[in-house]
Amino acid sequence: MGYGSGMSTPYTLESLNSVPLPTFSAAVGDVFEHASWVADAAFGHRPFPTVAALHHAMMGVIRASPVERQLAFIRAHPELGSKVKRLDITADSQAEQGSLGLDRLSDAEFKIFTELNAAYAEKFGFPFIICVRRHTRDSILKEFRRRLDNDAETERKAALDEIALITRLRLVARVDGPGKPKTEGRLSTHVLDNVSGKPAPGIRIALYEVGASARALLIEAVTNADGRTDQPLISDGPLRIGTYELQFDVAQYFATHGIAQSDPPFLNIIPIRFSIAEPEGHYHVPLLVTPWSYSTYRGS
Amino acid sequence: MGYGSGMSTPYTLESLNSVPLPTFSAAVGDVFEHASWVADAAFGHRPFPTVAALHHAMMGVIRASPVERQLAFIRAHPELGSKVKRLDITADSQAEQGSLGLDRLSDAEFKIFTELNAAYAEKFGFPFIICVRRHTRDSILKEFRRRLDNDAETERKAALDEIALITRLRLVARVDGPGKPKTEGRLSTHVLDNVSGKPAPGIRIALYEVGASARALLIEAVTNADGRTDQPLISDGPLRIGTYELQFDVAQYFATHGIAQSDPPFLNIIPIRFSIAEPEGHYHVPLLVTPWSYSTYRGS
Amino acid sequence: MGYGSGMSTPYTLESLNSVPLPTFSAAVGDVFEHASWVADAAFGHRPFPTVAALHHAMMGVIRASPVERQLAFIRAHPELGSKVKRLDITADSQAEQGSLGLDRLSDAEFKIFTELNAAYAEKFGFPFIICVRRHTRDSILKEFRRRLDNDAETERKAALDEIALITRLRLVARVDGPGKPKTEGRLSTHVLDNVSGKPAPGIRIALYEVGASARALLIEAVTNADGRTDQPLISDGPLRIGTYELQFDVAQYFATHGIAQSDPPFLNIIPIRFSIAEPEGHYHVPLLVTPWSYSTYRGS
Amino acid sequence: MGYGSGMSTPYTLESLNSVPLPTFSAAVGDVFEHASWVADAAFGHRPFPTVAALHHAMMGVIRASPVERQLAFIRAHPELGSKVKRLDITADSQAEQGSLGLDRLSDAEFKIFTELNAAYAEKFGFPFIICVRRHTRDSILKEFRRRLDNDAETERKAALDEIALITRLRLVARVDGPGKPKTEGRLSTHVLDNVSGKPAPGIRIALYEVGASARALLIEAVTNADGRTDQPLISDGPLRIGTYELQFDVAQYFATHGIAQSDPPFLNIIPIRFSIAEPEGHYHVPLLVTPWSYSTYRGS
Repeated sequence: MGYGSGMSTPYTLESLNSVPLPTFSAAVGDVFEHASWVADAAFGHRPFPTVAALHHAMMGVIRASPVERQLAFIRAHPELGSKVKRLDITADSQAEQGSLGLDRLSDAEFKIFTELNAAYAEKFGFPFIICVRRHTRDSILKEFRRRLDNDAETERKAALDEIALITRLRLVARVDGPGKPKTEGRLSTHVLDNVSGKPAPGIRIALYEVGASARALLIEAVTNADGRTDQPLISDGPLRIGTYELQFDVAQYFATHGIAQSDPPFLNIIPIRFSIAEPEGHYHVPLLVTPWSYSTYRGS
Repeated sequence: MGYGSGMSTPYTLESLNSVPLPTFSAAVGDVFEHASWVADAAFGHRPFPTVAALHHAMMGVIRASPVERQLAFIRAHPELGSKVKRLDITADSQAEQGSLGLDRLSDAEFKIFTELNAAYAEKFGFPFIICVRRHTRDSILKEFRRRLDNDAETERKAALDEIALITRLRLVARVDGPGKPKTEGRLSTHVLDNVSGKPAPGIRIALYEVGASARALLIEAVTNADGRTDQPLISDGPLRIGTYELQFDVAQYFATHGIAQSDPPFLNIIPIRFSIAEPEGHYHVPLLVTPWSYSTYRGS
Repeated sequence: MGYGSGMSTPYTLESLNSVPLPTFSAAVGDVFEHASWVADAAFGHRPFPTVAALHHAMMGVIRASPVERQLAFIRAHPELGSKVKRLDITADSQAEQGSLGLDRLSDAEFKIFTELNAAYAEKFGFPFIICVRRHTRDSILKEFRRRLDNDAETERKAALDEIALITRLRLVARVDGPGKPKTEGRLSTHVLDNVSGKPAPGIRIALYEVGASARALLIEAVTNADGRTDQPLISDGPLRIGTYELQFDVAQYFATHGIAQSDPPFLNIIPIRFSIAEPEGHYHVPLLVTPWSYSTYRGS
Repeated sequence: MGYGSGMSTPYTLESLNSVPLPTFSAAVGDVFEHASWVADAAFGHRPFPTVAALHHAMMGVIRASPVERQLAFIRAHPELGSKVKRLDITADSQAEQGSLGLDRLSDAEFKIFTELNAAYAEKFGFPFIICVRRHTRDSILKEFRRRLDNDAETERKAALDEIALITRLRLVARVDGPGKPKTEGRLSTHVLDNVSGKPAPGIRIALYEVGASARALLIEAVTNADGRTDQPLISDGPLRIGTYELQFDVAQYFATHGIAQSDPPFLNIIPIRFSIAEPEGHYHVPLLVTPWSYSTYRGS
């Protein structure tokens, strides 16, 4: 389920609450793929006090539809398989910028996806739908396997739930106004030097996505005077469910600040590996550190 | 500098203090390679109150010798290069048991060692001597580079210092008695579950040697009822200077004990990467852990 | 329930398993107060493979007795009130050595104990029995109140359970042999300096019992080269259920070791307040510390 | 050195830069006690780009004055002794709101202050001046003793430095504008529950000032949904150099949230004792806690 980019200026909820049907339809009709009837039916429930209420109304139209119409709607979505590409990235390519997308699968992974797609289509008769912006490759694979075990009704509902997540993201990007549903997560860090009792500036940080078959460098940053990064490590959208590793270059920091270490330093690059489970959550992963000890925790 | 194995039953210091010269010589004459004259000269300093005193006396013989004799003695040692072999281990072979020895170099590393050997022989006229049992491949390489910058006199002394470390290990294995110099290091761990306030049993632990070009699995263990491993992770000899990574499988532990985690768990495999600088030291690297936090430190 | 001291040399379980009844009776007949019939009846169950089995047999005699005989046995115990004395210790007397015994009550506490004793005797017709060696004054008071709400049968059983704890301590002191029940707890500490990665020697430690109305200094100690105290802070018997406070003089330590602190130091005397709930447990309460941070936890 | 309250609406720096001398003098003439000549002389250095520059100019007038004029100016300040009152607060009065002011001294403290005042006046011939808003009673006493050892010239400069701190506070309260010197400190906290990986709401917190002879309850608060207090624990002015204790009622929190604890809980009221050395600093003192462990550190 790709997420359409290149959107024009957002509409305001206020204007959508007052424009005639054709304008309303032109504005949000394509939020649900090939199903402008959804917007048309939701039109009758105006005015919407919040953006969330508008989305809720649109999903309500789908959910109140006869099962056959729901299935036809679901079937109109493209296959996930159409986005999958074979392009192995080796361990050496860790330094390469970018996440582990579906367009960079190893042979083995490509084979698995292809087989899962076939099995899924065979069993359910519609394409596997998932809000990819909330997932890493590994968590898509995990969900794929898990949902393949569902019965038809459970899976139809699961597909609608994912469509709700996908369309919620689209609507939030398209409509300005009060009561926007929370769709953005955030990953941040903070380094405190417990030898001097101060934030640790100038610490080089790297963030990796850790996949089953490869890892990818997502971002590099350096801590500022407050021991934080100027920007969150990840923001501007949902976080992707998956495993990550932060690496903090602490030996260089302590050496720069004249704090005694052994040779080689007991701690040099500190890896902190963690998983994200809530795409809309705030993950604050701080590091409290001396040359001989460190702590981390999920903060807030 | 290999370390001879297959030694017969150790002698006691007491007996060495009373036996005639030929017996003494037969016992410890080959502790210094091709230099039984060292033992013969040390014989005159008997009795030795401690094993350390015996070793000190033998090194004293070398250090009091004329420079030319020292150099001849040093030259009688084999080239480090003779032990070096090309045998690349890939990232995949991380699961392979064993440390990153000099007999498993990548092409690039083999080339570097060969060049360093040549440069060293050219500059100093004697082979590079280092107590390999106290080093990993990476720290040998680092020392090689560092010492290549020495002047001739500094390096002659450095070679003798390494010979002192090598022969100390041999003597300690050969002679029983009071006052043995400390030659053994130890690496241990301990896992405490801060949710239940108890040691964490059943945690799977893996210890890796982390080299510049590869990593090797050194040992796998499982914590016992006291949250420790039944045996130290490393013992029975000096630790090797270098970088290591402990990995603790905590998600499985918390799942087994019914302690709530997210899905996927925030913490799953916790890596703790550290370096050892003191081969004869005790490195205790504990883990204090909950599903959302952990601490580690050099303990005792 | 006082615990008789001045016992003579312990008997061995082996000898008790073979001596005639009068000797057996003379040896352990007074373990149960005024009830040598308990030992006499247990004599028939010899041989006892463990000290625990001997104790179990003796308690079995009591528990198999008719209720009236149990009550008569319970009534033969002295009143707790007979040990209670009014002797207020003020906050100033914190420096005074010794725990907060029942012989040093404030007026208010004395009044409460007197009233509880009266209410208890009125309701149950026998004295309140508790294994005082496992309790502080505050936990005795808490138990007193809790048990006063019991019905007669529950409380009779509670009294027998306490008698089991009291006699177990007596028997363990009286009889040597295999399978002694665990009656000893232990409180220990350990201080690690996370600035230097080493145990912190020379740290002055004070341990207080923290009562509702006063606190008492139990012990002062100084950490040794391993950052521990030469002896456990408490050992040689059960720990007392109650609240304690450890105080660590860390500012002096850091000053002595030339580690930079603010003036006044951010951390000076660190108090760690905790409660003991398991008299036979091991409470290890370490301190990991820098001039700007510390951690503690129940260790092992 | 009291700090005048009841000030009327602040002036703007912009207006002070343009008004005629009499108005300027009326506005800031009494910032320096009984010394409107300071403002008059500073008038000539207009315009001032920042409030700090205005203050710097005024202090420059004093510091450039002949020593005799400086001494006369210093002598015009009231005796600290005039604010000191005997009013013992006992340990019981810990619950009483308010800090340990100079108006609530024990007999012993009153005697010490009286003696120090006399000794100081005798030695230096002018009153002891200190910016009391930056100090607790204990740190005033410590400074008093320390400065009594100064020679006359050092102490004259010390008095001027304190006057700079006092007048800086006055000027900042009196004049609005760019470049205000930092005079405000802040004490804050944050409680994270490491069992659930979330901020801990509803934790009752008490903050005490810990004096040598007594302690005073400064504030009580409860953590909000983010595990913080709605307001900083201390703000709106400089922090007072001295020792403090935060107490966190964690047992109640864990009980409320159904997290298993021992009975009594290992941790109940957690005291964190620390000292403040920088009145204009931010002291963030968080608590990371489980029922069996906690950490604290100076954060940011």
